[in-house]
Amino acid sequence: MRKVPGSTVSRLSVYLRLLDDSGTQGVATVSSVELARRAGTTAAQVRKDLSFFGTFGKRGRGYSVAELSAALRSILGLERGWRVALVGAGQIGRALLGYEDFRRRGFVIEAVFDADPRKVGQRCNGLEVQAAERLEVVLAGGIDIAILAVPVAAAQQVAERVVSTGVRAILNFAPVPLRLPADVALKTVNMALELESLSYALASAPSARAARREE
Amino acid sequence: MRKVPGSTVSRLSVYLRLLDDSGTQGVATVSSVELARRAGTTAAQVRKDLSFFGTFGKRGRGYSVAELSAALRSILGLERGWRVALVGAGQIGRALLGYEDFRRRGFVIEAVFDADPRKVGQRCNGLEVQAAERLEVVLAGGIDIAILAVPVAAAQQVAERVVSTGVRAILNFAPVPLRLPADVALKTVNMALELESLSYALASAPSARAARREE
Repeated sequence: MRKVPGSTVSRLSVYLRLLDDSGTQGVATVSSVELARRAGTTAAQVRKDLSFFGTFGKRGRGYSVAELSAALRSILGLERGWRVALVGAGQIGRALLGYEDFRRRGFVIEAVFDADPRKVGQRCNGLEVQAAERLEVVLAGGIDIAILAVPVAAAQQVAERVVSTGVRAILNFAPVPLRLPADVALKTVNMALELESLSYALASAPSARAARREE
Repeated sequence: MRKVPGSTVSRLSVYLRLLDDSGTQGVATVSSVELARRAGTTAAQVRKDLSFFGTFGKRGRGYSVAELSAALRSILGLERGWRVALVGAGQIGRALLGYEDFRRRGFVIEAVFDADPRKVGQRCNGLEVQAAERLEVVLAGGIDIAILAVPVAAAQQVAERVVSTGVRAILNFAPVPLRLPADVALKTVNMALELESLSYALASAPSARAARREE
C-alpha cells in the first residue's frame, strides 16, 4: 500500500462524521461532490483519499452511506474499543476526561495519573487519580493509547516511561516536541500553537478590522 | 512573498519555543542542525522555513538566539497582544480559560459567553459568563480572535454570528468543519480526530503489543 498522508487520515475521520450524520438523517447514498462540499474539500480529493484503500461507490451513483461508513470505521481501527490512560489530572486533563466524543468513538479512558500527591485519590468522572509511580504497572496491563497532559518540563520523561511499558500511541498536549522511537505513533495537540497560526494570519494579511483601526 | 505553508507557520512556533528555552539557559547562538534536532525535523527544513521571511544567521556561525527569536515573534504577530473571546463555557471552554500558555503568548481572553442561562453570571477564572445574546455587541468592540467551544449543532451558526461582527480569526473546538468566508482565518482543534489518527496507526501497523496479544 502506498504511504497514506496524515492529512488523508484526518479527512477520513471527517468523512466518517459526515456519513454518520447522513445515516442518522436516513440518507442512503452520497456523492463525492456532496461529501467534499460538507468536508470543505474537493471531490477529486475525496476520491483520491479513498483510493488508498480500495474502490468505493459506483460511477454516477455515489457512495452507499452504510458501506462507506463501515469501511472507514474499519480503516480507522474504530471497530474495536481502545484502552486509554490519561497522564496528568490538571485542567486540560480533567476536560479530556469529560470529553464525550472520545467514548462515543470507542476510546475509553480507564486510568488517570498525577504526580501531585494532593490530587492522588481524588475522583474525576468516576475514575480515581492514581500516583504517577503506578504508571508502569497499570500501562503494561494492556493500555493501547496514552494521553499526556503534563507540564512541558515533565513531558519527555513521562513519554519515555509510557513507551517503556509497550504503549505505541501517544496523544501529547504538552507544548513541546517529543523524541520517541519511530514505531511509536505520536500526535500533538498544541492549542497555543494554533492560536499563533491565527495571529500570523492576522498580522501578515491585515483584515478589514485591522484596516478599520488604522483609519 | 511566496505562499507560506501552514506547516511552516506551525514549525515557526515550535522554533520560537525552543529559542526561548535556549535564551533562558543563557545560550547565545544555535545552529540549524541543533534547532532541527530539538524540533524533530531536518536542518534543511529549518533553513527552508526561515527562507520565506528573509536571511537569518551566518554560514558556519548559526543563528543569534535573541535576533531569531525577535524575528519569529514579529512574523507570528506576537509583539502585540490579541483580544480573545471564548464562546462556550463547558468543560473544554473552562479548561481553555485556565490555559496559562495563552496569556503568556499575548492571547488574553476578555469575554466568555454561554447559551445556557444557568451558566450566565457564573465566574470562571475571573471572568463573568455573559449571555450568548451579548455576542455581537461585545465582539464588535474590538475582539481579534474568537475561540468556539460550543456543541456541534451550534457551531456553524455561532461562527457566522462571530464573523458578522468583523472578527477574522476563529479557533474551533467543535468537531465539525465550518464553512466561512475565505478572508476568515480558521483553525480547528479536534481531539477525537487526533485519537483516530492514532487508532489508524495502531490498526494498520500492528505494534509489538498487538502481536503479543495474538500469541
